[in-house]
Amino acid sequence: MEEPTGRLTQKKVAIVGGGLVGALNACYFAKRGFDVEVFETREDIRQAKVVKGRSINLALSHRGRQALKHVGMEDKIVSQGIPMHARMIHSPSGKQSPIPYGKKGQFILSVDRANLNKELLTEAETYPNMKMNFDHKLKDWSPETGLMTFTRLDGSHDQIQADLIVACDGAFSAIRKQFLRRSRFNYSQTYIPHGYMELTMPPVNGEFAMKPNYLHIWPRNTFMMIALPNLDKTFTCTLFMPFDEFEKITTEDEVMEFFQEYFPDTIPLIGVDALKRDYFRLPGQAMVSIKCSPYHIGDKCVLMGDAAHAVVPFYGQGMNAGFEDCIVFDEIMEQLNEDFSAVLPEYTRVRVPDDHAIADLAMYNYIEMRAHVNSKWFLFRKHLDNFLHFFLPNTIVPLYTMVTFTRTRYHKAVDRWQWQDKVINRGLLFGATGAVLGGSYLLIKNPPDINKLIIPTEKMWARLMSFWTS
Amino acid sequence: MEEPTGRLTQKKVAIVGGGLVGALNACYFAKRGFDVEVFETREDIRQAKVVKGRSINLALSHRGRQALKHVGMEDKIVSQGIPMHARMIHSPSGKQSPIPYGKKGQFILSVDRANLNKELLTEAETYPNMKMNFDHKLKDWSPETGLMTFTRLDGSHDQIQADLIVACDGAFSAIRKQFLRRSRFNYSQTYIPHGYMELTMPPVNGEFAMKPNYLHIWPRNTFMMIALPNLDKTFTCTLFMPFDEFEKITTEDEVMEFFQEYFPDTIPLIGVDALKRDYFRLPGQAMVSIKCSPYHIGDKCVLMGDAAHAVVPFYGQGMNAGFEDCIVFDEIMEQLNEDFSAVLPEYTRVRVPDDHAIADLAMYNYIEMRAHVNSKWFLFRKHLDNFLHFFLPNTIVPLYTMVTFTRTRYHKAVDRWQWQDKVINRGLLFGATGAVLGGSYLLIKNPPDINKLIIPTEKMWARLMSFWTS
Repeated sequence: MEEPTGRLTQKKVAIVGGGLVGALNACYFAKRGFDVEVFETREDIRQAKVVKGRSINLALSHRGRQALKHVGMEDKIVSQGIPMHARMIHSPSGKQSPIPYGKKGQFILSVDRANLNKELLTEAETYPNMKMNFDHKLKDWSPETGLMTFTRLDGSHDQIQADLIVACDGAFSAIRKQFLRRSRFNYSQTYIPHGYMELTMPPVNGEFAMKPNYLHIWPRNTFMMIALPNLDKTFTCTLFMPFDEFEKITTEDEVMEFFQEYFPDTIPLIGVDALKRDYFRLPGQAMVSIKCSPYHIGDKCVLMGDAAHAVVPFYGQGMNAGFEDCIVFDEIMEQLNEDFSAVLPEYTRVRVPDDHAIADLAMYNYIEMRAHVNSKWFLFRKHLDNFLHFFLPNTIVPLYTMVTFTRTRYHKAVDRWQWQDKVINRGLLFGATGAVLGGSYLLIKNPPDINKLIIPTEKMWARLMSFWTS
Repeated sequence: MEEPTGRLTQKKVAIVGGGLVGALNACYFAKRGFDVEVFETREDIRQAKVVKGRSINLALSHRGRQALKHVGMEDKIVSQGIPMHARMIHSPSGKQSPIPYGKKGQFILSVDRANLNKELLTEAETYPNMKMNFDHKLKDWSPETGLMTFTRLDGSHDQIQADLIVACDGAFSAIRKQFLRRSRFNYSQTYIPHGYMELTMPPVNGEFAMKPNYLHIWPRNTFMMIALPNLDKTFTCTLFMPFDEFEKITTEDEVMEFFQEYFPDTIPLIGVDALKRDYFRLPGQAMVSIKCSPYHIGDKCVLMGDAAHAVVPFYGQGMNAGFEDCIVFDEIMEQLNEDFSAVLPEYTRVRVPDDHAIADLAMYNYIEMRAHVNSKWFLFRKHLDNFLHFFLPNTIVPLYTMVTFTRTRYHKAVDRWQWQDKVINRGLLFGATGAVLGGSYLLIKNPPDINKLIIPTEKMWARLMSFWTS
């Protein structure tokens, strides 16, 4: 930790929610020298016996790492994660083929959600101007005065008055309910028809059951399974499937039939008994995409993380986007001298288009991961994009690279992707048309004389590219 | 009214909201013989001195009329409306040009919202199995038991248990709040950047100040004004404008400057004093588009009208869609023998795509009405569509006609429109390309000999059309 900035009148910042984004934000605001209090409904997860809900591991990438770096946490968290350099596609026949995430040396990290949360809470507590309150459930609050009332476990009430309320209370945010009651608040929540279920693949002879440095994917069109490695040499498998498919499987035999048909290679690795037992432990869990705007009310309250933008998990950006919220807010605080009445509207203006873009991208990938990963065209385009990126590193940057390995604003990444896609597709169309026309012309003019065929020179290709990209 | 159907055990239907859709639904359910009670938060508008909020007049078209017809109300309501056969476009220079809504004899009706609501309430009260409760504000309800608690004006409570709760309580539905708390409920509310303001144009010498049988439109790109005729020979003018533009006008002089620049022809008709006074009576009012799904919980509760699908007012279909909800629900009740456990899911399945389609169309027209009505291409396409509809009445039906003058399902109308649009645009492109290529060819082969130009015969055109539409 670093020393807080000196300040004459300490303003009070209340952070609602002590999850990943709440705990990281506590570090950010404490580092700026504010009088920070965090209020979390649940008990301290560092003392909890069972950590309920949410997925077990997450993919940490560039944006998240940059946000951790700012509070000196990057190296520690990275050392506790497992690098994944590529997707490993499992075909129905059991064949495995890797598709790299980016260039050599670029990877994403599989990190343990609970452990990351604990580390962030412990880091936040090193700031003397930060106070942590667990078992505090928000009862009521006023966007006009900043007065908040919490109910403690014993039923007693706790009141505090904050200069700024930072809502990091997740997809089902209690704070956001007041936003919904106000006029001109745009809001959407969309549940996808798929649910998810987590299954554990244990180590084999003390080692990972599959290659550890990959995000394993079993794409099966209407559904799919993925697996991420954990530090304890297990894999957490997540099965994504439409709810009505989940409901069709009601007996242990049906579970086995289903896995036999679609994921036969995983049966010996997960284990027959574990599979039969764990499949029925919990029903399929719902996934929601939430978008809203504005993110603030006056100069008193701002939504961040999942409270502002819950995304479906298919781009691996939920936590990264939430962590980047902290940097973006901090940058605007710096620019506008911590004047909340200017910072909050600016944060809404700057951040809404980016969060909406990543929510849309995650939804797009929800289709792509299940279906296209199997298609020849998709694989061809992935390879072509990587190839073009290698030769024209500043002109053609794959979308996944911009999202995962840079801090290019999400909405700019989408704009650029659409532009690149148009250019590449036009180039392909142009090339194909040219080839057909040229070929026909030559065949008509000079029948069967193979020596007359023109092979385009590298210079011709370069000129063609520069024409289409200009 | 007609006699209710005989029934052994009378099921209780509670309708929440006594607005347009609630009152019409009361007639529908009472006609089926249910024990119906309507609960309305406000006082009886038939006794109210001031009717607050919402627009003054509405456009009634085919779907709404069909719904009224089913309960024998069509003729009465039509006789109290004013037919509008065409849009009357006012250019900035004051020129007026009509664009018909459909074929000769097709028109929409300007009806008074408050009067229509009163007529429907009075009609509902003619059923002996219908009870009306005003000043009843919903406090709590259970989707499991159908138990509802209302608070009366005097603070006392009223409890009833219903077999079916029909929520017709508008865009800000109190019933819908419980839906939002449940998992897998999709919901979106989108406020548009425009607000609206109503101004009255009084009669001139006891007669309408403008031609009465038109919906007058002043399209001005970023904003617009419309005017609908009333039975008392006034027009209600509605100004649609972005909120930030409303906020720029703060003095009487600025109001006059603004009208002088954009709507000079309306100044003498509205009157200088009235304009200066009425502009500041109320601020710009917000407009919201709401979509959600599913519309029901179990076999106990269903959302209808604005509670299920508030739309922006730019297609004139808000009330018509709400009234059509009543017919569609009634048709499904008939098909499925009034078995709520089957009727409610079926209603969601059938009606959601249509309501979402009309919400999207209204949003689309929000752009079209302001901007495209001024463009030459838009006018050309409107005329071309009407022309093609005249010659090929079963193949090409303008979207506006399908939406306004038929009961074609909204989402089918949109599908068909997109198909027609593709066909017509391809036809135009094909025609244009053919003309250019043919022309060039002729010019090259036979320079300046005008007699060689080929004029396509009617038969050629017919074959061309049948090719593109096959």
